[in-house]
Amino acid sequence: MTLDAVLNRIDATLPEAVDRLLELARIPSISTDPTYAGDCQRAADWLVRDLAALGFQASARPTPGHPMVVAHGGAGDGSGRHLLFYGHYDVQPVDPLNLWARDPFDPVVEETPKGKVIRGRGTSDDKGQLLTFIEACRAWKAVHGTLPGKLTIFLEGEEESGSPSLVPFMRENADELKADLALICDTGLYEDRVPAITTMLRGLVGEEVVIHAANKDLHSGSYGGAAANPIRVLAKILAGLHDDQGRVTLPGFYDDVDELPEAVRAQWQGLAFDHARFLGEVGLSVPAGERDRTPLEMIWSRPTCEFNGIAGGYAGAGFKTVLPAEARAKVSFRLVSRMDPAKIRAAFRAYVESCLPADCRVEFHPHGGSPASVMQIADPAFEEARGALTEEWGVSAAYIGSGGSIPIAGYFKSVLGMDAMLIGFAKDDDQIHSPNEKYDLDSFHKGIRSWARILDRLA
Amino acid sequence: MTLDAVLNRIDATLPEAVDRLLELARIPSISTDPTYAGDCQRAADWLVRDLAALGFQASARPTPGHPMVVAHGGAGDGSGRHLLFYGHYDVQPVDPLNLWARDPFDPVVEETPKGKVIRGRGTSDDKGQLLTFIEACRAWKAVHGTLPGKLTIFLEGEEESGSPSLVPFMRENADELKADLALICDTGLYEDRVPAITTMLRGLVGEEVVIHAANKDLHSGSYGGAAANPIRVLAKILAGLHDDQGRVTLPGFYDDVDELPEAVRAQWQGLAFDHARFLGEVGLSVPAGERDRTPLEMIWSRPTCEFNGIAGGYAGAGFKTVLPAEARAKVSFRLVSRMDPAKIRAAFRAYVESCLPADCRVEFHPHGGSPASVMQIADPAFEEARGALTEEWGVSAAYIGSGGSIPIAGYFKSVLGMDAMLIGFAKDDDQIHSPNEKYDLDSFHKGIRSWARILDRLA
Repeated sequence: MTLDAVLNRIDATLPEAVDRLLELARIPSISTDPTYAGDCQRAADWLVRDLAALGFQASARPTPGHPMVVAHGGAGDGSGRHLLFYGHYDVQPVDPLNLWARDPFDPVVEETPKGKVIRGRGTSDDKGQLLTFIEACRAWKAVHGTLPGKLTIFLEGEEESGSPSLVPFMRENADELKADLALICDTGLYEDRVPAITTMLRGLVGEEVVIHAANKDLHSGSYGGAAANPIRVLAKILAGLHDDQGRVTLPGFYDDVDELPEAVRAQWQGLAFDHARFLGEVGLSVPAGERDRTPLEMIWSRPTCEFNGIAGGYAGAGFKTVLPAEARAKVSFRLVSRMDPAKIRAAFRAYVESCLPADCRVEFHPHGGSPASVMQIADPAFEEARGALTEEWGVSAAYIGSGGSIPIAGYFKSVLGMDAMLIGFAKDDDQIHSPNEKYDLDSFHKGIRSWARILDRLA
Repeated sequence: MTLDAVLNRIDATLPEAVDRLLELARIPSISTDPTYAGDCQRAADWLVRDLAALGFQASARPTPGHPMVVAHGGAGDGSGRHLLFYGHYDVQPVDPLNLWARDPFDPVVEETPKGKVIRGRGTSDDKGQLLTFIEACRAWKAVHGTLPGKLTIFLEGEEESGSPSLVPFMRENADELKADLALICDTGLYEDRVPAITTMLRGLVGEEVVIHAANKDLHSGSYGGAAANPIRVLAKILAGLHDDQGRVTLPGFYDDVDELPEAVRAQWQGLAFDHARFLGEVGLSVPAGERDRTPLEMIWSRPTCEFNGIAGGYAGAGFKTVLPAEARAKVSFRLVSRMDPAKIRAAFRAYVESCLPADCRVEFHPHGGSPASVMQIADPAFEEARGALTEEWGVSAAYIGSGGSIPIAGYFKSVLGMDAMLIGFAKDDDQIHSPNEKYDLDSFHKGIRSWARILDRLA
């Protein structure tokens, strides 16, 4: 069986695959910070070289932001599907740097009580995950001499910074990018052990709010009590966004939120989600969201308003009795069902404007803006992939939701008319977006093997 | 008249005096940030050298923090008062650095539409002010051959960071420091033009509050909605500290706040404070404090709760969908009348503890803690000084209040049993504690002349 030969090849060449991941993870391709633009380009170039070496026709295509990597390969015999694989090569910022046990961009394989992990920024999100697919292609090519069927690889460099160039690029290159089915590797296992296909994703609206008061920083002795304090104004605004039941107070916020269909609710109940473990692993015990919802609903099927950053005045060592001229916060909303990003953004801005006292003005910086996506799983490819995952992991694969936002899944449908299948191997404790990010060697290894099995069924 | 000779000498040697101020202002003696400890020592050493050159027995005396400069000089004929002069050689931090038009520690004399100013961190607060007194002594010495009467100079290096070593040092050296009257140069002119003796100062209590939630930063996709967000908790805490009338909500906060004596209220009314100009100069128009108080009351005779800094999550360029593990704020209270710093600190901490939701904990870092001071002006020295100031400035000098906190005035009374006279020449637009701090050349020049006149009457 050639599948066995591919799987054996994957097992035998795992050390080299890990070395390639370490090499890619050494490039600090932080997309949100313009300082690292050159590194994003380097990561794109690295991938182009690697894909070209595998026989793909690969290029890094310029955008107003960071480049898109597009690669076409294989031809197939016309019987299989034309698949498009999506991943992203950009990574999250690394602060607070002092909480990292080592340089985030000097990744290494570490022994831990739970097994070997590959430690470093981006090893899980998403460099490790995207390489599971490329490494599966590499082993396939070594055994078969060709790539698995007709294949397009599409790698983005702005996923962690709101994907501003993504939709325009997809629109401009729609004919080139259109395939039969999209595969996306940017999600996780269910409860760290059950292979999963993610079929519900939340949308995201981000807003940076800057409150301006006096025309310069003031001395709190000379002006304290009389002058407007933008931190006080901002605190009041943020504090008013949730009621004491944990619900978001913006007018109309829940208007387009659907209750879960009974079938989905029943399937989720079957997953027997361990709420106590989920919170306990990060040192928490009481769900902080809507009082009448379970944690699984809170993270998969309910919308949120979260504060991702706040800054104003003196935050250094010691104390400074300053009344700052401005204060700022980064606020984000996770959207579900039919919630409209533009409507939520407008409601938020109207609320903030309505809270502004005399002498204060507000400045908004929008970030992202994508609706939730709910996948159609009618295509038999979904059941084929679920079978392949079940075989590799020895546990029945599940259809699950996800609290994160991967707008690309919705765009494949809305812009290119393709369904998307989200399969990933990350674990909850991968600390993506946090210090000390890691990817289990096992996720990487079985992830590569999983794609080989899926490609064997679909290509 | 020897006073005229001294004043002439001051006029003739002003350029050299300015050069000395520029030299001292080049030393970045930021006391709150441990990085600059060596520079605080350098500033102290510079002053010791300068005072020694004037004939003082001067030394930089070690403390657990930054050194105290103590200098004794002159003998007098026994007829005058033994005066002690106090100032501070440490300065505020300089951030946000990008708002400075030039290096804050490369001071320069600039022409402005309002006249010449000396621009740089500390040129007003308090290096320029303390040098007005030392320069007056220098001119006096040049004319008389001796220092003006029996004189002690006492310069602190921790005023901008809560003066942790001050009281212990005063207690340990009480016999050495005790004099007949303390002179303090760290206050301002009234409305930028009327010479003033400050007789009421607010106290200060500072608290840094750190709210901890999860045991690490989390991804707002994976945990948003379910996990406690410390920024949200902190915003709620801060937002609850003022009611919609602008009053501070801490239980008992106003218990020890006295209404102004009728005589003081009448005198303040006589000052015809220009509220619109006061706020208008910093781009504001509506007082933000207690609804039923005038701005002059808000800054001189009413207590406040202000937020001086806030930080949490991602504050860099772009966006990061993080749920931070912690968030922090620097909160300060200005105290008046008989308010007890310890009582206010305890009330604040109890309030914060009462607001903490499940899974969150709080950490407090105290900063400062001094009661308000109200000066006794029975000593005829006050009227002598007021006469000298009136003569120099050609405008009747006023007794005023001050919103700032200069705890040293209270300590001279409580620790050493001395009255203190606060006279300074700063202007409201000096931007002390802000970017682009400056001291008017006129403040410096007439400040030196003012002290010469006062010393002529008191020494």
